[in-house]
Amino acid sequence: MSKGLLCLILSTTLLSAQYKDMELNWKSIADFNVFGSLNTFEDGKIRRFPDSLQQKLRVPLWKLSENTAGFYLKLKTNAPFIKVQYRPLGELSFPHMPATGVSGVDLYVKTKDGFNWVRGNYNFSQTVSYSFSNMELSEGKHEFWLYLPLFQSIADFKVGIPKDYSFEPIVESSNLDPIIVYGTSIAQGACASRAGMAWSNILGRKTPYPVVNMGFSGNGRLEPTVIDYISKVKASVFVLDCMANFTSGQNMNPNLAHERLKASITFLKRRHPETPILIVQHAGYADGAIQKHRLVTYSVLNKVTQAVYLELKSTYDGLYILTKDQIGLTSESFVDGTHPNDHGMIQYAKAYKEALDQILR
Amino acid sequence: MSKGLLCLILSTTLLSAQYKDMELNWKSIADFNVFGSLNTFEDGKIRRFPDSLQQKLRVPLWKLSENTAGFYLKLKTNAPFIKVQYRPLGELSFPHMPATGVSGVDLYVKTKDGFNWVRGNYNFSQTVSYSFSNMELSEGKHEFWLYLPLFQSIADFKVGIPKDYSFEPIVESSNLDPIIVYGTSIAQGACASRAGMAWSNILGRKTPYPVVNMGFSGNGRLEPTVIDYISKVKASVFVLDCMANFTSGQNMNPNLAHERLKASITFLKRRHPETPILIVQHAGYADGAIQKHRLVTYSVLNKVTQAVYLELKSTYDGLYILTKDQIGLTSESFVDGTHPNDHGMIQYAKAYKEALDQILR
Repeated sequence: MSKGLLCLILSTTLLSAQYKDMELNWKSIADFNVFGSLNTFEDGKIRRFPDSLQQKLRVPLWKLSENTAGFYLKLKTNAPFIKVQYRPLGELSFPHMPATGVSGVDLYVKTKDGFNWVRGNYNFSQTVSYSFSNMELSEGKHEFWLYLPLFQSIADFKVGIPKDYSFEPIVESSNLDPIIVYGTSIAQGACASRAGMAWSNILGRKTPYPVVNMGFSGNGRLEPTVIDYISKVKASVFVLDCMANFTSGQNMNPNLAHERLKASITFLKRRHPETPILIVQHAGYADGAIQKHRLVTYSVLNKVTQAVYLELKSTYDGLYILTKDQIGLTSESFVDGTHPNDHGMIQYAKAYKEALDQILR
Repeated sequence: MSKGLLCLILSTTLLSAQYKDMELNWKSIADFNVFGSLNTFEDGKIRRFPDSLQQKLRVPLWKLSENTAGFYLKLKTNAPFIKVQYRPLGELSFPHMPATGVSGVDLYVKTKDGFNWVRGNYNFSQTVSYSFSNMELSEGKHEFWLYLPLFQSIADFKVGIPKDYSFEPIVESSNLDPIIVYGTSIAQGACASRAGMAWSNILGRKTPYPVVNMGFSGNGRLEPTVIDYISKVKASVFVLDCMANFTSGQNMNPNLAHERLKASITFLKRRHPETPILIVQHAGYADGAIQKHRLVTYSVLNKVTQAVYLELKSTYDGLYILTKDQIGLTSESFVDGTHPNDHGMIQYAKAYKEALDQILR
């Protein structure tokens, strides 16, 4: 080993300064703009629907809207250390999704090379905390994106920066209208290994458009209340990716899928004739070849998606479809046969990016 | 929806027969050959080292050898239902690796299209159980591969098949010598979302050679006792993929890596001059750009690997190197910056397959 490299090892170990909580300048989530959200949080609660919708929504949907999937905070700092801490309100992990995915946060920093992932040390218990230490970035302030948990509801969320460094929450929104994704557990992020690997978050790093995550596990059912809510927003694209929840396991069926998909498109197009709509086929299961009833389930729903597309594409401008084949999942893309692993999430994001680049060019 | 498809949906729901445990023919693990193992289990314990080595190995290494990483059973049956049940002896999951990965089993069936993944319903508690039901395969018997847990030690492991179906454990070994992988947590399978996604198991489905997993989390340290043990076997290739454990976190260092890598190759080549040896670089971390001391860590170890390769390749025939660049992980390939996610596992398997195809052509 060369002497130069040995010196570098020694000098960098000196960087391992940790900070005590008392040496940190804390900001609560209320000091930030919550990106990836349609809600303005006038009621002070961090969730994906406003208080005014609680009585109009089914309870499971309302509960899932309290999960912070797709939310991210932006901040600028020159600090080499960032601490994040919050109180989780639900289960820390699932049998098929680790705590880092269900309850973890994920930090990225923008450099001249684009987004760089930042490693954190984490602790999951009654408090969830992440310490991002020893960051060795170039001099000056950098922009960080902090992704919030995918399947967790949060309380007392706060971010700490050592007192002698700058700490500026970024509140300015993009001047581009968001891509709004209405979907299922897969859109919500199941089963990414960490928040940044949910496909909507991967996509959000690859496109200049803000992405809004309206994915609700088991409850992406193209309901009129939700369609009405998202239609209040000026979007760049509305994405309807709900087919995975029109199965018998959800007490739904292909006829209802047909009816609701058509009604959703019609409603959105009446209110926003110029806004493109991307409808998405069921991406399939890992085990269609072995469990043919599951192959039938997604094949029928994909015929429905295709049929609605063909029925309405001459009526409305700007109606697009993303097919199962374009998403291209294989048996190595899943955790449990139904939910993508990180590999599947990358495939999803890639397919979406290609489709949306065509639509938004 | 067409009437044909509706009928198919109805008829397939009739397939949902479950079986009670009393209707099953159970076989214990002792009735099977354990593939992916060098140990003959003469002491009745299912682990990666024999009893005779216990006194010679460090305690953590011995404990990790009780994890069933890389083990798989083979069986033939015409049953549409297979149940697996065992008692876990360790933690069911890790914060960065779900129970399906740490403690889960994974089932594949061979069909004319190759290996097909089979979905199971699982339950993790004091007993871990998987039910693979409603399998709709062509008539006759099929060969199944059942992967054992990656980071769990097991007791009372058994497999149940409905009594009215055939149930034949396959015991015949391949006539090809195994690829023996001596590695770290990554080789052991951290952090695959399920057993079949550990790179050594993915590789095992892509090559006709049996693959043996000697990956020991945090303890892949090229120790003489382990090298001596694997050298007792006639292998197709010896793989030495231990660089990730020669870091200061393991109280190891690059000089020791250099010394042990050289000694390991020399020892193996003296005993098996004709057997190829593949040495593997550290695959890097997700965050080298942000935490430069981590970039230094893997860069120095990769210089060591390269140096040993250049020093010895003219002395010994059949010495090969797999480089970090060939493995090609990116920041999207990791769970925690150190351990690959399923995407990283696929990249690992692909790189290994290409390297081994060259060596074994």
